[in-house]
Amino acid sequence: MKNVSRLTWLNGMTFESEQFGHKIIVDADSKFGGQDLGARPKVLLLTALAGCTGMDVVSILKKMKIENYKLEIQVEGELTDQHPKIYHTINVTFNLTGKNLPEDKVKKAVELSETKYCGVTTMLKKSAKINTKIKINQGEIS
Amino acid sequence: MKNVSRLTWLNGMTFESEQFGHKIIVDADSKFGGQDLGARPKVLLLTALAGCTGMDVVSILKKMKIENYKLEIQVEGELTDQHPKIYHTINVTFNLTGKNLPEDKVKKAVELSETKYCGVTTMLKKSAKINTKIKINQGEIS
Repeated sequence: MKNVSRLTWLNGMTFESEQFGHKIIVDADSKFGGQDLGARPKVLLLTALAGCTGMDVVSILKKMKIENYKLEIQVEGELTDQHPKIYHTINVTFNLTGKNLPEDKVKKAVELSETKYCGVTTMLKKSAKINTKIKINQGEIS
Repeated sequence: MKNVSRLTWLNGMTFESEQFGHKIIVDADSKFGGQDLGARPKVLLLTALAGCTGMDVVSILKKMKIENYKLEIQVEGELTDQHPKIYHTINVTFNLTGKNLPEDKVKKAVELSETKYCGVTTMLKKSAKINTKIKINQGEIS
């Protein structure tokens, strides 16, 4: 299977990207010559990671008949100081809220995504140490 | 330096992401239970790569006093068949159009991005073989 993303340069550091008919503006911060009109390329890697693992987790929990909850995922990436700047550490926090959420099943769903299904995690962990936290109703589970 | 991306699950496979105040909807194709309302996570990796190297190239060419041209970047990623599905090959094509574009300088700008500046390329090439083509006014340069 093949995926394609196309970018057209608009001006300055501003690009318009297109994938499967969806458009995203990509831009840099003003301190790097951009106009802050859209997403930063390197942050899109973190968005990709969050989306990939998030879809896995909701799919796996659905198969486990767990559907009535809220989920937020925060992904922080820490960059090296020298060029080429890469993420040396990525911290992923899953925040679930809901009644009677079974810790063991939530933990299992996250583990299955990390170890078996999420291709973005698999790719990025070749560069970065990925640390994962799970919080249920704001309490961290081990 | 630290980057952050936050995703909130809306429903199905649909998530809303936020980074530096910019929102992007992330969703899956209908054949994977999604509603096709936004970007696919794994394709965002290719958008990140295109944006990162694109910003490098326009910056470097600007320093070389080359500014009057158009640029489109196409990035194709070929996925493995088995889970976790990762890109084993990524093909990047730079399409530049304009008068009197110096091949050697364009080639140098792309090489500097690939080898020295683009952190996204550096991270993804740990998983994928990255092949690069440069076309000036639709003619491929070696």
